Amino acid sequence: MPTFALEIVSRYFIRLAYKGTAYQGWQAQPHTDLTIQQQLNEKMSMILRESIDVVGCGRTDSGVHARDYFAHFDSARTDLGGNQDVVYHLNRVLPKDIAVKKITAMEENAHARFDAVSRTYEYHVITGKDAFNDHQAWEIRDVPDVMAMNTAADILLGYEDFAAFCKVGSDQKTTKCKLSEAWWMRHSDYIVFTITADRFLRNMVRAIVGTLMDVGRGKIGVEDVHAIVQSGDRSEAGQSVPAHGLYLTEIIYPDSYGVNVEEEI
Amino acid sequence: MPTFALEIVSRYFIRLAYKGTAYQGWQAQPHTDLTIQQQLNEKMSMILRESIDVVGCGRTDSGVHARDYFAHFDSARTDLGGNQDVVYHLNRVLPKDIAVKKITAMEENAHARFDAVSRTYEYHVITGKDAFNDHQAWEIRDVPDVMAMNTAADILLGYEDFAAFCKVGSDQKTTKCKLSEAWWMRHSDYIVFTITADRFLRNMVRAIVGTLMDVGRGKIGVEDVHAIVQSGDRSEAGQSVPAHGLYLTEIIYPDSYGVNVEEEI
Repeated sequence: MPTFALEIVSRYFIRLAYKGTAYQGWQAQPHTDLTIQQQLNEKMSMILRESIDVVGCGRTDSGVHARDYFAHFDSARTDLGGNQDVVYHLNRVLPKDIAVKKITAMEENAHARFDAVSRTYEYHVITGKDAFNDHQAWEIRDVPDVMAMNTAADILLGYEDFAAFCKVGSDQKTTKCKLSEAWWMRHSDYIVFTITADRFLRNMVRAIVGTLMDVGRGKIGVEDVHAIVQSGDRSEAGQSVPAHGLYLTEIIYPDSYGVNVEEEI
Repeated sequence: MPTFALEIVSRYFIRLAYKGTAYQGWQAQPHTDLTIQQQLNEKMSMILRESIDVVGCGRTDSGVHARDYFAHFDSARTDLGGNQDVVYHLNRVLPKDIAVKKITAMEENAHARFDAVSRTYEYHVITGKDAFNDHQAWEIRDVPDVMAMNTAADILLGYEDFAAFCKVGSDQKTTKCKLSEAWWMRHSDYIVFTITADRFLRNMVRAIVGTLMDVGRGKIGVEDVHAIVQSGDRSEAGQSVPAHGLYLTEIIYPDSYGVNVEEEI
């Protein structure tokens, strides 16, 4: 008779933030350990003394930051939910640009990527020079027309197919996304774009920002945005803006997951 | 008969910000050009094609930041006031952690240090880990008693001699300072101390913060602060906290100087 080894594991969400400058994105890759995922796998396996394999809520590109990020993992330990001692020790061994906030016990099939209801990104532009800006905002010289950029952003909310802003060669099954917000705010020298959707295509936010910046700089008109989206052609849209201005800022899960609490951010 | 060469110069204020991490403080020193003053002298002389010698509003220590800073200088040029082209070119040649905001034409005897009416410093403490904190806040593990620290800060406002918080060996003529505010604010993981006075002694803010942190951690009682100040003895006060949490944030000049405009900060 065959023997069955039954492995009992508990599933957890781990909530973190990272500055992406030093990393080749979230996703583990061969021939480098400079990805957030590999750093987490290594350091968590070390602290928990078992092999840990985290699954992230999404793949951020090289140089992109996350002010808020979730991943799930399984562990033989049952005492990790809300365990701030483990969080403290993890933070001590992780590099200074990766910070763990909390570990939460979840149902066994909770999935950090598939179960996310919405994701929010911000893109930070600064007009002028900020002595404290270390790859955290895209510096440009002249203030663009933010009002025109907001009118153009409104146009995007009327569409659901964003193929025109999807990196060529991506193997996305569908290019449809449900946008729920897209707006610019100017505060002194800072101009910040906020965009929320159920999902994003590869390179989508940076291509959208590049296109809206073209509007703000008068290279194209506000109404041209309609034709760009409708073309479904990446080459019609604006250039992708640099990665270092981009932040993943919020991931929303169903309320029943109990991880959306404002104070935890 | 002797010949007199009459040099006509114009006086200017230059307003800037810097991240102090890479520098050995504001003040020029022999055997290094890693001071803010030397960087400014070099790059301004290069751009303006004349020898420029800036005089700062105060000496910040190695690793201390300035979100706002003024210096004065003289130039043979008369067109530098409000000249944003010169500011732009200066910012291009200065390191990324020194940012010039504005140059303002002043009366010939306006002095960046002697004429400052008040100076404000902030000290930033973070409880926990911030992935984006790059020498910009002092990280501690446990949340101190901020209410007790505020009561202790209030006590300081009743005194005018701060010898107990002055670096030993400093050749200050007087250890008297007029404090006008000293208070703590907690916002999520950040705890920020704000202090304003007409003048500060060497190392004074960091020694005060160290002493108030002793109160917040229960090492000493709130009322002990009276005896510490009255002792006039540096060894009675708490340890000096690390430089990288300290920011010079505001320098106020007489209104007639026209440089205190809120929007310019």
